[in-house]
Amino acid sequence: MPTNSPVIVDLKFIPEEVEAALQGAFPGREVINLADSARQGRDLSGIDYAVVWKSAPDLFSRAPDLKVVFSGGAGVDHVLTLPGLPDVPLVRFVDRTLTARMSEWVVMQCLLHLRQHRAYEALAKKREWRDLIQPEAADVTVGIMGMGVLGQDSARKLAIMGFKVIGWSRSKRAVEGMDTHGAAEIDSFLARTDFLVGLLPLTPETTGIFNSTLFAKLSRKGPFGAPVFINAGRGGSQVEADILECLDSGVLAGASLDVFEREPLSPESRFWDMPNVFVTPHVAASSDVKALFAHVEQQIARFESGLPLEHVVDKLAGY
Amino acid sequence: MPTNSPVIVDLKFIPEEVEAALQGAFPGREVINLADSARQGRDLSGIDYAVVWKSAPDLFSRAPDLKVVFSGGAGVDHVLTLPGLPDVPLVRFVDRTLTARMSEWVVMQCLLHLRQHRAYEALAKKREWRDLIQPEAADVTVGIMGMGVLGQDSARKLAIMGFKVIGWSRSKRAVEGMDTHGAAEIDSFLARTDFLVGLLPLTPETTGIFNSTLFAKLSRKGPFGAPVFINAGRGGSQVEADILECLDSGVLAGASLDVFEREPLSPESRFWDMPNVFVTPHVAASSDVKALFAHVEQQIARFESGLPLEHVVDKLAGY
Ligand SMILES: NC(=O)c1ccc[n+]([C@@H]2O[C@H](COP(=O)([O-])OP(=O)(O)OC[C@H]3O[C@@H](n4cnc5c(N)ncnc54)[C@H](OP(=O)(O)O)[C@@H]3O)[C@@H](O)[C@H]2O)c1
Ligand SMILES: NC(=O)c1ccc[n+]([C@@H]2O[C@H](COP(=O)([O-])OP(=O)(O)OC[C@H]3O[C@@H](n4cnc5c(N)ncnc54)[C@H](OP(=O)(O)O)[C@@H]3O)[C@@H](O)[C@H]2O)c1
Repeated sequence: MPTNSPVIVDLKFIPEEVEAALQGAFPGREVINLADSARQGRDLSGIDYAVVWKSAPDLFSRAPDLKVVFSGGAGVDHVLTLPGLPDVPLVRFVDRTLTARMSEWVVMQCLLHLRQHRAYEALAKKREWRDLIQPEAADVTVGIMGMGVLGQDSARKLAIMGFKVIGWSRSKRAVEGMDTHGAAEIDSFLARTDFLVGLLPLTPETTGIFNSTLFAKLSRKGPFGAPVFINAGRGGSQVEADILECLDSGVLAGASLDVFEREPLSPESRFWDMPNVFVTPHVAASSDVKALFAHVEQQIARFESGLPLEHVVDKLAGY
Repeated sequence: MPTNSPVIVDLKFIPEEVEAALQGAFPGREVINLADSARQGRDLSGIDYAVVWKSAPDLFSRAPDLKVVFSGGAGVDHVLTLPGLPDVPLVRFVDRTLTARMSEWVVMQCLLHLRQHRAYEALAKKREWRDLIQPEAADVTVGIMGMGVLGQDSARKLAIMGFKVIGWSRSKRAVEGMDTHGAAEIDSFLARTDFLVGLLPLTPETTGIFNSTLFAKLSRKGPFGAPVFINAGRGGSQVEADILECLDSGVLAGASLDVFEREPLSPESRFWDMPNVFVTPHVAASSDVKALFAHVEQQIARFESGLPLEHVVDKLAGY
């Protein structure tokens, strides 16, 4: 009987969480955790599988025999841009908890803007008891760009919270009870959108898509007069100089950003302390590492028994 | 034909909102808005209806012939404690938008604590990019005290966001897909609760119910080690000295308070700037004034055509 191929684990996550999740994971299989300094020099040839998140650029030259590459997250731009990516299936992470966590973040950010959280915090700082005129969720249209696994779940939950929700995606996904727009209908989509939520993958087509030209097309008829930009897709899709300019000029009334052009966000960035901007450090939907390994185990079992892999990325489309 | 009785309006809301909502309201009926200084001396005898929110204590002596009193909000403690309340039906305000607004507030507060918002704000203030270990909603049990119109809607929405939700009420309401507890089962309810949400009316039985003894019975097994207290019912149900003590000692990990023993909250209060406390000035679910007048018109029409009034308060129970 051939021995099971080891699994390379190269995840730039919280190291203790990876260690803890590896307890009992991949039974009957060696695990090479590259975060473990003792393993860093290990010969990686002849190994079939790697689970990666922000790997070092030499990974694929060191491990030339991979049969499947697993992304440690839902996005794969960080893998597609690694030098020497072999021509083998790339599987992304799709998971109930990841999806639920993203919707927590998106719904919370929409509520923070709706409920004028920063304005109330400013009043609290002055110890001033005063109520502001308060629109309700039904007065606000949230437009979601990217109606995939994450966009659809956020859309459903925002609608239950009372928001009007519309969606935009490459292929105009039909979502029950929701107006959706295809790629060509971008202008009419933007004209209706008060809060814009980005849940797009980073691809050549989506790079820099969130820019001044786009922001200028958003609705100014909402209850706050100017639109809000919320992004948890990828920082490469946003032009940060344009966001700053639009916040300064009032083209945008506020923003919530979990992702940035360059991460970690520089300590010099103005985003950290702008009045109506919420910054989180790319944590909107962190992968549950235990769930990630369970998903990888399951896909390896499928692969080794000849079943098709699930959640395989279309490398040409880039997601 | 008898002329229609005028309606007294005595609402301590944002005056411009009341004025705007009165445009076109109560057609064929005189409106006596006591916020209007020209009307303040008006003879109020012989008038059938009053819509009130935090009236002056002489209202009922000035208007001795009321046939129905309408509360401007969902709560009626502010009416029941007015001197000289006549023995006529007291109708409270139940409304889709009020309910939706309360759920916005409750869901947002639960998410703020779940997603460690204050910890991330503190990191942002230091311009520090760092991720915290993040439980998901399914790891947290939200226990709601008061499963009436508002508690049930919040419960349903919290469950959709992924939280485990349990409820407690006087008569153990059966809510689909949810564990509910009757009044006697308070201890087992508290032992399971990580985030406690108060949506109780203020009655003799609920006065001071949120105190140290109760907080000490809450679960300490949740992902944050200590429980969180969230109250949007009435301030009279909470003992603020106890909340402060429990926050200081770590019996409570945080709080969100929309209501207070004395409102407006004193500028001297420590609540305004405690690290994990969110304060809002009794705005969780402000009445939509237009919707309020529509509801009052509808109930007057029922009353005048001999139909039973809806949402009549049980004055003995106090809600
Ligand atoms: N911040 C975080 O913590 C975090 C966590 C996880 C994921 N993410 C990001 O979220 C992204 C979305 O994840 P997902 O699981 O929802 O992906 P998905 O299921 O693949 O959905 C992607 C969506 O984007 C649309 N799209 C892609 N390219 C487009 C284009 N050029 N024009 C218009 N629409 C386009 C797709 O359209 P079709 O429906 O027509 O295919 C689809 O609706 C990931 O790629 C990742 O970058 C961020
Ligand atoms: N902060 C704000 O902006 C705001 C806005 C609106 C309302 N409120 C407050 O929210 C309260 C609730 O509103 P609602 O419309 O949901 O009222 P509701 O429909 O009358 O529900 C009240 C709930 O509390 C329960 N309850 C009452 N006394 C109790 C006791 N002694 N022990 C246990 N449970 C008890 C009731 O039990 P049963 O089910 O057995 O009757 C019921 O489940 C209002 O009274 C008001 O004070 C606050």
